[in-house]
Amino acid sequence: NHPVNSKTFNLFRLNAGEVVVGDGGMVLQLERRGYVKAGHWTPEAAVQHPEAVRQLHREFLRAGADVLQTFTFYCSEDKLELSGNVTDITGTQINEAACDLAREVADEGSALVAGCVSQTPCYLENHNEAEVKSLFKKQMDEFLKKDIDFFIAEFFRYAEEAAWAVEVLKTSGKTVGATMCISPHGDMSGLPPGDCAVRLVKAGADIVGVNCHLDPTACIQTVKLMREGLERAGLKAHLMIQPLGCHTPECNLTGYISLPEYPFALECRSLTRWDVHKYAREAYEAGIRYIGGCCGFEAYHIRAISEELRAERGFLPPASEKHGLWGAALEMHTKPWVRARARREYWENLLPASGRPRCPSMAKPSQRDLFGAEETCTERRGKPTTKHRMINEPEESRFDFVYI
Amino acid sequence: NHPVNSKTFNLFRLNAGEVVVGDGGMVLQLERRGYVKAGHWTPEAAVQHPEAVRQLHREFLRAGADVLQTFTFYCSEDKLELSGNVTDITGTQINEAACDLAREVADEGSALVAGCVSQTPCYLENHNEAEVKSLFKKQMDEFLKKDIDFFIAEFFRYAEEAAWAVEVLKTSGKTVGATMCISPHGDMSGLPPGDCAVRLVKAGADIVGVNCHLDPTACIQTVKLMREGLERAGLKAHLMIQPLGCHTPECNLTGYISLPEYPFALECRSLTRWDVHKYAREAYEAGIRYIGGCCGFEAYHIRAISEELRAERGFLPPASEKHGLWGAALEMHTKPWVRARARREYWENLLPASGRPRCPSMAKPSQRDLFGAEETCTERRGKPTTKHRMINEPEESRFDFVYI
Amino acid sequence: NHPVNSKTFNLFRLNAGEVVVGDGGMVLQLERRGYVKAGHWTPEAAVQHPEAVRQLHREFLRAGADVLQTFTFYCSEDKLELSGNVTDITGTQINEAACDLAREVADEGSALVAGCVSQTPCYLENHNEAEVKSLFKKQMDEFLKKDIDFFIAEFFRYAEEAAWAVEVLKTSGKTVGATMCISPHGDMSGLPPGDCAVRLVKAGADIVGVNCHLDPTACIQTVKLMREGLERAGLKAHLMIQPLGCHTPECNLTGYISLPEYPFALECRSLTRWDVHKYAREAYEAGIRYIGGCCGFEAYHIRAISEELRAERGFLPPASEKHGLWGAALEMHTKPWVRARARREYWENLLPASGRPRCPSMAKPSQRDLFGAEETCTERRGKPTTKHRMINEPEESRFDFVYI
Amino acid sequence: NHPVNSKTFNLFRLNAGEVVVGDGGMVLQLERRGYVKAGHWTPEAAVQHPEAVRQLHREFLRAGADVLQTFTFYCSEDKLELSGNVTDITGTQINEAACDLAREVADEGSALVAGCVSQTPCYLENHNEAEVKSLFKKQMDEFLKKDIDFFIAEFFRYAEEAAWAVEVLKTSGKTVGATMCISPHGDMSGLPPGDCAVRLVKAGADIVGVNCHLDPTACIQTVKLMREGLERAGLKAHLMIQPLGCHTPECNLTGYISLPEYPFALECRSLTRWDVHKYAREAYEAGIRYIGGCCGFEAYHIRAISEELRAERGFLPPASEKHGLWGAALEMHTKPWVRARARREYWENLLPASGRPRCPSMAKPSQRDLFGAEETCTERRGKPTTKHRMINEPEESRFDFVYI
Repeated sequence: NHPVNSKTFNLFRLNAGEVVVGDGGMVLQLERRGYVKAGHWTPEAAVQHPEAVRQLHREFLRAGADVLQTFTFYCSEDKLELSGNVTDITGTQINEAACDLAREVADEGSALVAGCVSQTPCYLENHNEAEVKSLFKKQMDEFLKKDIDFFIAEFFRYAEEAAWAVEVLKTSGKTVGATMCISPHGDMSGLPPGDCAVRLVKAGADIVGVNCHLDPTACIQTVKLMREGLERAGLKAHLMIQPLGCHTPECNLTGYISLPEYPFALECRSLTRWDVHKYAREAYEAGIRYIGGCCGFEAYHIRAISEELRAERGFLPPASEKHGLWGAALEMHTKPWVRARARREYWENLLPASGRPRCPSMAKPSQRDLFGAEETCTERRGKPTTKHRMINEPEESRFDFVYI
Repeated sequence: NHPVNSKTFNLFRLNAGEVVVGDGGMVLQLERRGYVKAGHWTPEAAVQHPEAVRQLHREFLRAGADVLQTFTFYCSEDKLELSGNVTDITGTQINEAACDLAREVADEGSALVAGCVSQTPCYLENHNEAEVKSLFKKQMDEFLKKDIDFFIAEFFRYAEEAAWAVEVLKTSGKTVGATMCISPHGDMSGLPPGDCAVRLVKAGADIVGVNCHLDPTACIQTVKLMREGLERAGLKAHLMIQPLGCHTPECNLTGYISLPEYPFALECRSLTRWDVHKYAREAYEAGIRYIGGCCGFEAYHIRAISEELRAERGFLPPASEKHGLWGAALEMHTKPWVRARARREYWENLLPASGRPRCPSMAKPSQRDLFGAEETCTERRGKPTTKHRMINEPEESRFDFVYI
Repeated sequence: NHPVNSKTFNLFRLNAGEVVVGDGGMVLQLERRGYVKAGHWTPEAAVQHPEAVRQLHREFLRAGADVLQTFTFYCSEDKLELSGNVTDITGTQINEAACDLAREVADEGSALVAGCVSQTPCYLENHNEAEVKSLFKKQMDEFLKKDIDFFIAEFFRYAEEAAWAVEVLKTSGKTVGATMCISPHGDMSGLPPGDCAVRLVKAGADIVGVNCHLDPTACIQTVKLMREGLERAGLKAHLMIQPLGCHTPECNLTGYISLPEYPFALECRSLTRWDVHKYAREAYEAGIRYIGGCCGFEAYHIRAISEELRAERGFLPPASEKHGLWGAALEMHTKPWVRARARREYWENLLPASGRPRCPSMAKPSQRDLFGAEETCTERRGKPTTKHRMINEPEESRFDFVYI
Repeated sequence: NHPVNSKTFNLFRLNAGEVVVGDGGMVLQLERRGYVKAGHWTPEAAVQHPEAVRQLHREFLRAGADVLQTFTFYCSEDKLELSGNVTDITGTQINEAACDLAREVADEGSALVAGCVSQTPCYLENHNEAEVKSLFKKQMDEFLKKDIDFFIAEFFRYAEEAAWAVEVLKTSGKTVGATMCISPHGDMSGLPPGDCAVRLVKAGADIVGVNCHLDPTACIQTVKLMREGLERAGLKAHLMIQPLGCHTPECNLTGYISLPEYPFALECRSLTRWDVHKYAREAYEAGIRYIGGCCGFEAYHIRAISEELRAERGFLPPASEKHGLWGAALEMHTKPWVRARARREYWENLLPASGRPRCPSMAKPSQRDLFGAEETCTERRGKPTTKHRMINEPEESRFDFVYI
């Protein structure tokens, strides 16, 4: 009764309007568990500590994920080198081990395995299409030696680089999804989300959307803009979303990286499971059918997607055996005032307190968030306009949009 | 070079003033991973999903824990029955499986295994000493069939029940630690922390302290009061602390259970790793040498204890290979304003924002927090006094203490 | 050396680019002093308690106001009747007494007196141009019996009604200013600020701008949009601003009336004098030269405008004798840490705390704020669009503007 | 039907258990109106701008004040000299003018006039009893030349100096009230509130209590401690309270002076009228019968005391003609959602938002608040104990009280 048959995933299910639940974030969670180094964010743990990667995959599977993404983030050769190659482990070893781990766990249920590539330092450095594409091709070839079901090109800040990745991956004949870590303002070259989506679909992407960097509210908005862009262009594609598991209302182009709390004090921004219910419903209503999470999405967040969309999917995930819908399991609590929380209204309307009386509710992100220094190596397609200032400076500039 | 020899832990190390790092919280974390049901909070996953329990033990070991506690919380027969016995799994099976799992992982390093018992519903129901003690004896006997190093009686709200547990466990001839989930106001019968500690030591406890229910600030204060009580009584014991991984400045006798956010919206109260640095230092300076965490303490929090006390312990834990001290690994970040965060001053002084502009910083805990209905079955040793109102009502009653 | 000669104010000064400082809010302040009834907001105190009105005028004069507005808010006959005519005092009596009071105090310095009319209930009820205009004409004729220098039509939510007021007032041959209490979204019929300004100038207004309802940030933005509208239309007028003295970032079309705190719990939103420095500078830089305040602007706020623009105006107001610039008078404080506050950087960068740990930083304004029921009697020029939702729902809809 | 006959106030009314409503704060309000210089805080405006002082007295009278205090704060010769004697006005001139102004307005109703003295710089400088007493005697003699009804010695941080003032004032044969600006921790020499009260009553005070520096919650607590001290000593006196009109939960010994917001950014801490209702009721229930306000209490706050205690007093004040109880006058508002606020439950339960998303709810007061440098010239009666740290450091030290 699983909605996606792992061996023949060829968009039939999405074509039929069914929901695909994605998995959650690997690197941030494995950093907290002690297996990934913040700053590097590379996935050598697939070789060094396979049991840790396997277990996290398994948690997502139990939470209802229909897809397990290979733990191959930042696993292009140029990025691994930049990170200092502290180990003797090669990108090839990581890519292959990661495919095996995802496959092994996916087969414990009936999930699909997506082979994943992400942005390369090389692109920012020289924009050499051949060189960048060769990096993607190397990873793809390693994936194709293993049993993967389709590809995802994710975490791209420039539509151009993402399109190059898609063009390479499409040569495999497999389904390709492509997500960008961009805001409603568009990619770092100033290309609006609608135009990004058009470019990706023209490059061959079957599924387009956003991942990481911004919270569900912002990401849903960006995907809506992508959808509109595709409609205007008369193109079709499935929509996909894997947002950050944190609230980032102050953020802008560079996303949560501009927050003072990044990356070691983000806890109090974390989504609750109830925030995720709201997110899953809104994403669904926006026509998005591939719904997952990125950094900050733990297993219980993915389970909340599955539980919110249980009617649409027709079943609950295994991990719901250990969870009462909307807190129902609290009915057995010994304290009557805790029992009173065993209901949807309670959790839907709760405004959680932080227990931190000296902390502000909103941060003032770095001034440099607007256009960071490292971006200037890129020739921009458009000049920065006032609209870029809006999200980053909510208080002072909140009406700037009127100028757009 | 490990400070504690797992086979001969007989207080020599603590006697010598060395630090013992405890592990973190199991049930809350495994709830999020999909293996424990909130409301029940029982540890049947030790039998059902040993790989998940094993992996969490391993994360704590890597983070520097010198002790792994068996995953046997709430594993007395009466509690399992109350939770509905949804499975056919018996308490005996869980206790034995949990010992094996802890032992297996402990031996991957050189950690100790502590067999753990906790409060029983039976005590509140009938206060029958023989009956309550027989529950503890049953668990102890199951532990003794396995290879455990010492015992911890934890999460007790009444000194009397905790003392009964200690009396039983001491018949084994092994070292016994005892922690209570109480506030500086004392246990639920009104017995001050100092008197609780005296009672526990007289019952035979070698190590006394607090766990769960309140944040590090409150727990340190309570342990200090325990220490003073022991000093007044001319008694000696080692001090132990395993607080909540959340900020709970509004809480009182019943701890975080009285918070509106309990148990499904506690995220924005979570300690950062930097909060833990501060906690570890303060606990150490208060003379506490067994320093760990309870619900909310994940592997990276335990690692932060190990890193803060690296000079005192003389080494860093394995998981520090994946972590720069005080954010040092950010030095390689591409964005200069993120690189600027690679220093202690930055993280020590950060006031994290919640990204939730409509949420208050402090909650108004339940009115019933003072003395919950279920407590009235207990004969009190003292009547509630005004001092009990202080912490729970920070705004209105903050000076009530002067009356004490 | 006063920049405005009270007897010959004919726009020469504004034409020369000089700053005119307006006065502050009368009704809210007199409500707090015990002379105006919230809910009614009518100015019968001009007759009942002239000493109170006189004193408040005097405070504004001392603070540097170049213009004193007659205390004739809501003093049209239809509004007075609606308010229950609790007294025997007629509108004529109030209008005449108010002119005398403003004149008397203005002549203690060299300020101008502006006779003021505001929105009428009649307009919303029947849109009868003749009837509405006759109400304005009656007030104008009463003013003309007294010694007033020019007119201000203020607090209009519909450009049409404001234009009618201007058309009437221009028959006097005197200078006419017109301000609307609108947001950057435009007036309540959906007419954008730029179009409102064009309509007012075409009706004869010499000065146009906004007053009340929203905070300085929003009002500056609206006046900028007015300026742009005039530029596009090739029209010229002086710009004027008298915003609310409260922070209202959550507010939208109906302004602070939609805030849960309106009107009896607005204290913690009040602007500090330092907020006003920032506001005055931004207004000046936006090309606005008539700069004052509305509800919530007390004498010390007006003084802050005068002090911020002291270089542009060439002098300080009388009340600055009792004030050190940027806190300079604290230099004589006995406590060194208070003395350390006697500098601009301290106050400019201070983020004031509220001392209210259970309160949120942002409110959730009434859902009905979007288009209140009473507005439906008006035939709209345009249908509500998504852009209207933006300001009112900052968290959920903050990207809606992209659709516009 | 006024409860206090102005000419024969000799404690009969207070003896009979009737409520006396005090007035509000003069200096902070007149600073905002442009007549008092922050840093100096001296009352030369009584001579320079009598109309402004008269009007503020009148507002308090209309709000229900039974007592008007002469505007003679900090009007001892030594303090005036310290403030630089910027004018040629002498203390004698100010004291006499202030008596006349208070008398003139008091007779517009039937209020009493209290001649007020406050702390002297001389005391801190040399502790010379004869010299300090001569300063008080000079002021008293000037008051006695005028028509005042009784005396208040207020704003004392040391019980010794306050007692000296009382001893001098009692030589007049008139009733004497004495209030100290202290916290529940006691005066700056470490003397607890109960002992302070005993000392004042033994010195001859008929009424004792607290004023200024801390919010109603703290001040009520301090007066309760004074009452208990008197009870223990078998002494009797009437109780009086005139707290700050700001929320100061973070503050300690030196009160709001230690707040970063002092004195120019206190707005968002202001009490609402509804906060004052709560305060008035709690003060009454604590047995306090002389209930007024200090800095930050405006006329509408005093009116709120009168309205809360209308049943106990048997009448409403004149200014209630311009106010509906609990917002009743909103019933006539055109917007239905504003009309819905015309009820007690709405305002009692409102948690006002600040509109300042980047501001914390609680400040971190100056480290030097504990014992400021200028205090060290004073020989302390006791050494600072841990209890002094509690209020000032709510987060870290909130349990320190247990040590007391």
